Amino acid sequence: MDGIERYRVRTGQIIRLDEWDPDETALFDGSKKEGKALLPALNQRLEALQELLWAQHTHKLLIVLQAMDTGGKDSTIRHVFEGVNPQGVKVHSFGVPTPEELAHDFLWRIHQCTPGSGEIAIFNRSHYEDVLVVRVHELAPPQVWERRYAHINAFEQMLTDEGTTICKFFLHISKDEQKKQLQERLDDPSKRWKFRKQDLEDRRLWPAYQAAYEDVLTRTSTDAAPWYIVPANRRWYRNLVVSQVLIDTLDSLRMHYPQPEEDLAGIVVE
Amino acid sequence: MDGIERYRVRTGQIIRLDEWDPDETALFDGSKKEGKALLPALNQRLEALQELLWAQHTHKLLIVLQAMDTGGKDSTIRHVFEGVNPQGVKVHSFGVPTPEELAHDFLWRIHQCTPGSGEIAIFNRSHYEDVLVVRVHELAPPQVWERRYAHINAFEQMLTDEGTTICKFFLHISKDEQKKQLQERLDDPSKRWKFRKQDLEDRRLWPAYQAAYEDVLTRTSTDAAPWYIVPANRRWYRNLVVSQVLIDTLDSLRMHYPQPEEDLAGIVVE
Repeated sequence: MDGIERYRVRTGQIIRLDEWDPDETALFDGSKKEGKALLPALNQRLEALQELLWAQHTHKLLIVLQAMDTGGKDSTIRHVFEGVNPQGVKVHSFGVPTPEELAHDFLWRIHQCTPGSGEIAIFNRSHYEDVLVVRVHELAPPQVWERRYAHINAFEQMLTDEGTTICKFFLHISKDEQKKQLQERLDDPSKRWKFRKQDLEDRRLWPAYQAAYEDVLTRTSTDAAPWYIVPANRRWYRNLVVSQVLIDTLDSLRMHYPQPEEDLAGIVVE
Repeated sequence: MDGIERYRVRTGQIIRLDEWDPDETALFDGSKKEGKALLPALNQRLEALQELLWAQHTHKLLIVLQAMDTGGKDSTIRHVFEGVNPQGVKVHSFGVPTPEELAHDFLWRIHQCTPGSGEIAIFNRSHYEDVLVVRVHELAPPQVWERRYAHINAFEQMLTDEGTTICKFFLHISKDEQKKQLQERLDDPSKRWKFRKQDLEDRRLWPAYQAAYEDVLTRTSTDAAPWYIVPANRRWYRNLVVSQVLIDTLDSLRMHYPQPEEDLAGIVVE
């Protein structure tokens, strides 16, 4: 899939989400069935690259996933990382902060979960909630969250300078798609456990959330840590886009297996 | 003790350590004996302020101690915090990084140890080693440690914005004083365990360390997180200065005990 950079937010680019079509599948002109059939090959490629990352033990990869409710974060993790060795890949879900977490700065719990050499860390929600839900639900005054954009950029720049590669994905769905997903959760007894009444309240705040996301995407996409806006109404296409970005990113690191010890040729194991 | 701000490094102030006298006792004109007799009152004041900090559970205090070998970091902690309730005060000593710590950025292990609300954290050595020993012993190339001054300033600014008060102390001793202390360690069987041959090598690098400290003090003293250069040849005076800075800093937070629950008047406990 060529042309993936169309989804990358350039440094300083001003984002208005209604200009980004959550339904588009511009980089693939086959059917849904054909698109789905493409994923296993990408899984295998990602698997091989993760093995190399682990073996070389030099680079660290941090993946941030953000989306509106029902945007498909869990499903993306399941499908994109299918087959990838869980050793060396850690998923961290950041929910409502504990009292101990709240007693520290907002990056405290985040920093602890950043990847070490050879590791991939996937953040299912992240420090961005501290300028999203915190802003929309007024959990902190504007002067507090307003400063956080700069703190986030400095933090991510530091991570990058110290050897971490960062990819951030906003899974972009439409309000209609969310309606469909929420109704499905309510109607399907096996999915009903996922539904919280809070989801409806958050849905009423849709415009405020979209505005908060626009600020995040406009103010925190940097060369060091770019955002990708992934059209996510069609899940098969979303999976292809996220996989391709990760593969391109890992490819660009030009990794290689460590040199074996010397004088191994001719050794016969008895 | 008035005039303590003479030891505070102003933002942007260029520091040359040979202009700072490690022997001076400018703010106290009594004898050593009289100076020592002053400390218990300061201990008690600090103890009361720490109790208030703990009870109010709002502010966080981070104390950074740096010094050349034998500069007196351990001794300062012991004397300044004598009598202070160890609940709510945590000392973190940062030695040679573990493999896991080295697999992460230099602030990773540091951030985990920052204080929570109501707590005091004392760093015995700190993230500053990553621009001191790392620079002097060339453990990382200049382009790596050069970036770290800015990362440190951004990190400390973030901590401050999120509610942490930071005091940083450089315990300033002379090369002669170090000689005296090292010889004492060698000659006194009960102190000999503290001596490492490495100390002599570091002593040969004295000028390089002083230059590295001058850069730290010049580039990372900010309004958010000021450095104090403490004359530390006379230990009794060093203790008075550190205590006074901490007391003044905590006083400036204008803390108060939390409001008790209402309608407690007249209650008789049976």
